[in-house]
Parts: sequence; structure tokens; C-alpha cells
Amino acid sequence: MTRILRIDASARAERSLSRKLGDRFIREWTARDPEVEVIVRDVGQTPPPFISEAWIAAVFSPGMTAEQRALTAISDELIAEVADADIIVFTTPMYNYGMPAALKAWFDQVVRVNKTFTFDLARGDRPLEPVLSGKTVVALTSCGEFGFGPGELNDGGDHLVPHLRFASRYLGMSEFHHVGIEYQEFGDHRHDASRQAAFLSVEDLVARLAHPAASRVA
Amino acid sequence: MTRILRIDASARAERSLSRKLGDRFIREWTARDPEVEVIVRDVGQTPPPFISEAWIAAVFSPGMTAEQRALTAISDELIAEVADADIIVFTTPMYNYGMPAALKAWFDQVVRVNKTFTFDLARGDRPLEPVLSGKTVVALTSCGEFGFGPGELNDGGDHLVPHLRFASRYLGMSEFHHVGIEYQEFGDHRHDASRQAAFLSVEDLVARLAHPAASRVA
Repeated sequence: MTRILRIDASARAERSLSRKLGDRFIREWTARDPEVEVIVRDVGQTPPPFISEAWIAAVFSPGMTAEQRALTAISDELIAEVADADIIVFTTPMYNYGMPAALKAWFDQVVRVNKTFTFDLARGDRPLEPVLSGKTVVALTSCGEFGFGPGELNDGGDHLVPHLRFASRYLGMSEFHHVGIEYQEFGDHRHDASRQAAFLSVEDLVARLAHPAASRVA
Repeated sequence: MTRILRIDASARAERSLSRKLGDRFIREWTARDPEVEVIVRDVGQTPPPFISEAWIAAVFSPGMTAEQRALTAISDELIAEVADADIIVFTTPMYNYGMPAALKAWFDQVVRVNKTFTFDLARGDRPLEPVLSGKTVVALTSCGEFGFGPGELNDGGDHLVPHLRFASRYLGMSEFHHVGIEYQEFGDHRHDASRQAAFLSVEDLVARLAHPAASRVA
């Protein structure tokens, strides 16, 4: 049985385009694989707490006090959801050229020594190593602007998708896929075309990724 | 009189290296220009709230209700601090290849329609324009790893400094400077050298930027 962890990051509920991409992703997947298990973690509506100095001290502490266990309980819970997932789907808008703070707070809770990565200076210049592996990470995004490619209008301004991809190595990412809607603030034909193309791309992506249990067994 | 807004983002207090760079910056500046006014906004210790759907609705609302004014009061306050500043100094660690969530929450509160930017589709493909101008933005950073340059070990992984720089256009940035410490998690001679070089660079930077009131008048 495939397990999908869906992480929604938009502060908006009904009006969020990235959530709608996520809805389409889950609907298509469920149609192909009715036994799929979907866990939803809505950080847009219920952001995880910011990490604190006490949190950092706790995760580096060899034996935790009751207080430290309480402080890291949400981190444990979020990490367990990642560990259990085969597919991790982020639905997220671009806010100010990067992740919404709520999504960054999720990463700051989840990337944790001896839980999602180990640290050993004997490894030389790459002392960090992910604990988890084999996970497919999917980023479904929406943004108001456009032209973040090389030489384009906003070249150098996309700190959402490349950042998500880079940080996802600590989620045990083995493959990464991205589908995004652009031009949202223009509300013009370019936005319509971008939106239509994105929903089609989500369908194509699910067709490639979803393997119904029946055909896997066959 | 020069006004500096110092924004501290580390979750750590005494143990923060980026804060120590900030301390040096302020001490050097004060030695050269005793009349400087320094405002400290510590988002590491006291993070701003995450923006919400109600917040977004409020900032797009032409006339705010009392509830909406309350919801955006902290945003008003943070924006006023930016507007009053000549120099904006960020002291921040790299967390998971980007800003700490608390610093991103600050940006999400500060970048606000009709306050720090205006939006007009008549401007074509660049409908957003900053309201503020003439500000010097300084990023004083620390990170555990190293090698974020082209072709280096962590090429493509720095979503802290380029992101800060790109988003700071909406703070009215006219110039940007960066001094960073690397290799923190290695704790070796490379880290020592990086730290020493950074403190010297901060002194050099202040020598270039600080114009004592006396000499300005003369």
C-alpha cells in the first residue's frame, strides 16, 4: 500500500491554487490506486512552532528531560509522518520568493540530528548523511510572478523550488518532481494557460508515479 | 543622525556567532559615530506571527475593521522600523539552507501591498514597485557548512544570502553587503580562519559605511 504525506502550506484555504493542484494529485492517485493512504499535514492552517534555543539544546541532548520531550513532541510527530511516507507532496505558494514561513518552520522541526540525519566528522567534508531514503518528493506550487529561469525577468529570484529540492535530501528524497502555476497576480491569459498546463502535468505525473496495487502484484 | 535597524534571527542568544558579528558591527559603528541610533528587533527570541488568510484579506481590504487593524498592528510596527532606518543589519544563521522560519515570518509581515510595495498592472511585466528607497542592507551570517559557490561542494544550496538580497528590494535596498562565517559544524582551523576573516571584514565594512556626523557637517 502506498502512503502519501500531503503537506499544505498556503495560508489560504479555498482560494489557494497550490491546494487545488494537491486536490487533483490526490484525486487522480486515488482513482488509480484506491488503497492509497493519504495523511494530510496542514501547516498553512496550523503552523508548527518555531524552533528555539531550548529546542536546539534538547535535540543535541543525549538523554532528554520530560520538559525536553514535551518540547520536541511535535517534531517527533512530524518526523514519524515523513518516515512512514512513500510519497511526500508539498502544496505551497511562493511568498516573497521563498517558502511561507510556516513551511520553513516545518523543515526546521523535521531536519533533526540522529532522527533525519546523522553527523560524523569522520566522513570528511560531507559530515551530514540522511537517515531516510527512497522517498519521492513532489512540489506543487503557485506564484504571482514569472520568469525565474536563466536570463529571464526574475532570474535568481526563485528560492522556493530549488530550496525545497535541496533541503528535501534530509527527508530521504530519491526523486523530485515539480509542477507550478505562474502569473497568478496578472490574472490574464498567461495565467489561464499556466494553470491549465499545470493541472494536465499533475495528471501526467500521477500516471507515471502511481502503480495500482493490482498491477504491481500481477 | 544615522539610524540602524538591527534584526537578529538566531534562535540562540549567547552562543550565536551571527549575533556576535552584529555586536562587532554596532560597536565599530558607535565608535565612529556616537550619535548613531540603533533599534534592535529580535525575531530569534520573539518571532513575529505567521501570516494567515485573515491577515491577507486585511491587507487587501480598502478600509480595515478594528479586528483587522489589530491583526496587522505588528506588521505596521515592523514596517515603521524599516521605514525609519538608513541601515538594515540582519544577523542570521543558515537553517536548513535558508532563513530561520522566524526571519521569513518577519519578511512575510513586512512585504505588504500599499505599505512597502505598490501594484499596478499598467507597469507591464513588473507590476510591483518598492515604496521605500535608499537603504543599505547588511547581511551578517553564519553557517555550519561551506562551499556554496559555483562548482563547489554545496553549489545551489545557498538560499539564505541570495534570498535575503532578492527579497530586500521591497525594503528599499539601494546597496547590499554580506559578511559570513562558514565551517561552524567542523570547528576546525578553517572555521577559525573564516571567523577571524569575518570579524575583520565587518570592521572594514563599517569603516566604509559609517560617516560620523561631525565629518558630514564639516
